[in-house]
Amino acid sequence: MKNSVLQYENVFIADTATHVGKNELEGPLKDYFDMYDEDIYFGQKTFEKAESELVRRSLNLLFKKTGKKPEDISLLLGGDLLNQCVATSFGVAGTQIPFLGLYGACSTIIEASIVACSFINGGFVDNAAVVSSSHFCTAERQYRFPLEYGSQKTPTSQNTVTGCGTYLLQNTPTPYRICEAVIGKVVDNGIKDANNMGAAMATAAVDTLLRYFNESNARAENFDIIATGDLGKEGHELSVELLKRCGLDLGDKYTDCGMLIYDLNKQDMHSGASGCACIATVFGGYIFKRMQKKEINNALIIGTGALLNRNSSLQNESIPSVAHLIHVVRD
Amino acid sequence: MKNSVLQYENVFIADTATHVGKNELEGPLKDYFDMYDEDIYFGQKTFEKAESELVRRSLNLLFKKTGKKPEDISLLLGGDLLNQCVATSFGVAGTQIPFLGLYGACSTIIEASIVACSFINGGFVDNAAVVSSSHFCTAERQYRFPLEYGSQKTPTSQNTVTGCGTYLLQNTPTPYRICEAVIGKVVDNGIKDANNMGAAMATAAVDTLLRYFNESNARAENFDIIATGDLGKEGHELSVELLKRCGLDLGDKYTDCGMLIYDLNKQDMHSGASGCACIATVFGGYIFKRMQKKEINNALIIGTGALLNRNSSLQNESIPSVAHLIHVVRD
Repeated sequence: MKNSVLQYENVFIADTATHVGKNELEGPLKDYFDMYDEDIYFGQKTFEKAESELVRRSLNLLFKKTGKKPEDISLLLGGDLLNQCVATSFGVAGTQIPFLGLYGACSTIIEASIVACSFINGGFVDNAAVVSSSHFCTAERQYRFPLEYGSQKTPTSQNTVTGCGTYLLQNTPTPYRICEAVIGKVVDNGIKDANNMGAAMATAAVDTLLRYFNESNARAENFDIIATGDLGKEGHELSVELLKRCGLDLGDKYTDCGMLIYDLNKQDMHSGASGCACIATVFGGYIFKRMQKKEINNALIIGTGALLNRNSSLQNESIPSVAHLIHVVRD
Repeated sequence: MKNSVLQYENVFIADTATHVGKNELEGPLKDYFDMYDEDIYFGQKTFEKAESELVRRSLNLLFKKTGKKPEDISLLLGGDLLNQCVATSFGVAGTQIPFLGLYGACSTIIEASIVACSFINGGFVDNAAVVSSSHFCTAERQYRFPLEYGSQKTPTSQNTVTGCGTYLLQNTPTPYRICEAVIGKVVDNGIKDANNMGAAMATAAVDTLLRYFNESNARAENFDIIATGDLGKEGHELSVELLKRCGLDLGDKYTDCGMLIYDLNKQDMHSGASGCACIATVFGGYIFKRMQKKEINNALIIGTGALLNRNSSLQNESIPSVAHLIHVVRD
């Protein structure tokens, strides 16, 4: 496959806004998030409405931080894990911004960023906001069991991040530039355990990383951080091993947002974090703010998504996965 | 909102491939579809797998018709109505083509086409395939009731098209060019009846059509056809009335794919057709083939999507909707 690595010249991150819940606030990255709320309902009557409220609050904060009104934004892109992406649809319904709904499971905000880059760099819009959310309680109901069942979780399972991240991308220069991207292929390695999605997504991440390093001149040691979205501890270890077998050692800069957001020694989060909001808040919060402090100048961010649904698991299907990559530099 | 109408110079339709089921074959457009199969399972064990099979068959036919192999395609974009878009994920898993999952409900193939146009015209890829499917039996289970319940349908309800459409877009010239597009806003007009999605989508279609005609120099009489996706008879009549109140009379060239695919006098299809495959097969089959015959030279195609899910209906929520527009000319 030629042209795997897309090149962008004039796409910049104006700013980000992140909103998290209680568990994320108890983790090591708490100081990097913009907003939090300990009420798991966020003032709403249902978990689904709570997730839409997260989207609304995050977008409003993004508008405030960037000094923009909704009518200043040319394009809005996003999606979430709920059936038919309703958290986003209801969350953005009042904005009156042209909207493209995307579904890349937990990779959605990176997918949205890549699409936004192509619209901006192609000269079709001047700016675009991307947004993606997840909520522990809606995801449990959606993919596994309603919370009321009190199900036990397996050691390989991951905890869905309750939160939302949103970024404003634009053609007006800032120090933060998205310079490259790789669009993932749907990879199906036969993993069928919905409680081990990290393993399913690991090969997708490996596929995308190999394509990037094989087809670009990049060297792993030049990056300050190489972070996948939500492989978790289990999936991360698998990906390290698989990459090494393919001759690629990413070293100790290689990590996973799902391992960063919680303290896996103190918080009972099994293999780590997952969900659209995992990479959305860890990149938008932790990594982007460290770029602002000049602690990170060169970042490779790989959104990872498990493209299953509840029925496909019950029907004993495998878990197709995808991983989309962006390369962000501080100029 | 400025820049509502996106302009494309070098995006061409190489060819289309369409696959339908039994009901569609009994309708007036039967001669315009490429493939059909009367087996509602398409040789698979479940309806969900049947829908993925439709995706596979359609893509394979597209590759065959265009003389391409999967490795010749730079980008694949698509989605469907199933939870977490699994019909598409499983359907494309074997292709090894970089994939962007989209969710715009029944507007998905038009949304995918617009995103593809921006990638192609922006110079990021040379070509892109778009695909979208729906299946009557999966959609009933997903949005309303499993077929086994034998539920009665209301007169305003629509019948989900069983089928799949796929198009290859490219920067190599053909006579069929996508020259303009409008990305829809999420419109919520308070309609709550999941059996009257045409009404919910009508205002989204009206919003997009008004933006197009207000911001371009286009005149309705210059088009050979102006077709919305799946408003059905009920939604179409509403949109005509709403447009007239806003001073826009689109005349008798204005129609709806949901009214074209079935014979509403003979087939018991209530308000008409719906589903991702409705506009995907009617544009890719009927309209595109009439363009090939030079019977249609100037077409305005408006994909319409109702962004609800089953829970949002049960929770008495309204139905946010979206409508994406493309302008296709035969040069």
